[in-house]
Amino acid sequence: MRDESAIVYGRYPVLEALRSGQTADRLFVQEGLKEGAVFTILQIAGKLGIRVDFIKKERLDELSRGERHQGVLMYLAAARYYEPSDMLRLAAERGEDAFLFLLDGIEDPHNLGAIIRTANVCGAHGVIIPKRRASGLTTVAAKASAGAVSHTMVARVSNICDTIEKLKKEGMWFVCADMNGKSMYELDLKGPIGLVIGNEGSGVSRLVRENCDFAASIPMKGQISSLNASVACGILAYEIFRQRMEK
Amino acid sequence: MRDESAIVYGRYPVLEALRSGQTADRLFVQEGLKEGAVFTILQIAGKLGIRVDFIKKERLDELSRGERHQGVLMYLAAARYYEPSDMLRLAAERGEDAFLFLLDGIEDPHNLGAIIRTANVCGAHGVIIPKRRASGLTTVAAKASAGAVSHTMVARVSNICDTIEKLKKEGMWFVCADMNGKSMYELDLKGPIGLVIGNEGSGVSRLVRENCDFAASIPMKGQISSLNASVACGILAYEIFRQRMEK
Repeated sequence: MRDESAIVYGRYPVLEALRSGQTADRLFVQEGLKEGAVFTILQIAGKLGIRVDFIKKERLDELSRGERHQGVLMYLAAARYYEPSDMLRLAAERGEDAFLFLLDGIEDPHNLGAIIRTANVCGAHGVIIPKRRASGLTTVAAKASAGAVSHTMVARVSNICDTIEKLKKEGMWFVCADMNGKSMYELDLKGPIGLVIGNEGSGVSRLVRENCDFAASIPMKGQISSLNASVACGILAYEIFRQRMEK
Repeated sequence: MRDESAIVYGRYPVLEALRSGQTADRLFVQEGLKEGAVFTILQIAGKLGIRVDFIKKERLDELSRGERHQGVLMYLAAARYYEPSDMLRLAAERGEDAFLFLLDGIEDPHNLGAIIRTANVCGAHGVIIPKRRASGLTTVAAKASAGAVSHTMVARVSNICDTIEKLKKEGMWFVCADMNGKSMYELDLKGPIGLVIGNEGSGVSRLVRENCDFAASIPMKGQISSLNASVACGILAYEIFRQRMEK
């Protein structure tokens, strides 16, 4: 699934990529290595908040497809990551109530791309994703976004709950998609709002749901009780859009 | 992308599959063959309205991955196909205005599956797809539908325009998704309605658009001017759902 161009391996190529300001998606380091150039790489990765995984040499051989990796391999992101504060600034500049998407573990890069595309089209100010157990801005996600990654900010955070807590202090409200929630048509979704969408299979996690102000459901009439995650996100985002238009 | 189990090849296995009532998605026959069992196969396929393509032996060898195909190979559909009239009957049984999706050339089976899932969830009575230049009910589409193909009827027609004409005589209205159309919030989308969604890249074809009563657009505020096809379908379907709820 990954584009070849999005992988860098070898100590100096990785170091160079980090120093040149390219955005890393994930860094893999061979178990047991931490001296010399690898030490420097780990230091910089630490400062930049890049996720590091220590893995066996055999797995690195696979990832580099047999090319000489010298114990380090990095996936580059297809676009740079921003901070949630950048999104609030954009909303303020536009004189609009903040409107953010928070994705609690979207794993499929096609869904991530489709959601970033929706965020752009409906005028949301950014998309927040977690660092772990979720798709990052891979080339597949960038392609599925149909170019939206170049226009819509994506932030990657360590913990979605902490981010919600911080953004609440900035006056935001949070609504999560939950089939047991109140019908989206009966909720007041105006004002500075964060729309929280859960994982494709398991939905929004318990802790995140408890941190949200509301749970919104999409009314359902069929035998199936859930929608594709990017479709559900689009329907909820446009209900928010419609309500914001009304005021 | 196709599940192995969805392919049948060899004259007698194909004949058997056709006689047992399994739904064929497409039949491939080697160029020049039309005698004996192949003649019988072509006769049955003709009666059942199955699409037949005559192709070179080399292509058949590829499709069967080198297995002995005897000049015939068939893709089975992951579910049976219905007729548009079955969908109208279902709407009448439920005492509801008919609500159908018509897909004018959706090529990605993931999108087709996600759309069938949406159709089920929002209470639509069926999904109509064209026989050519579009994804059929493959196993990938069935999987992406999360089980909805077992509950929501899918019909396959030779010509979407003709189908629209016929359904208009039954009192249905047709609205197509078109970024140059009137805002969906300003249209009256109540009554017996067919929602027409175009191809992922090129949208609704000119002839089909001209046959629709309205063109509806999803209001857009970003730099990108289109949504993923299954997301757009979900947003429009739920605007129809909302308006139908109001009456």
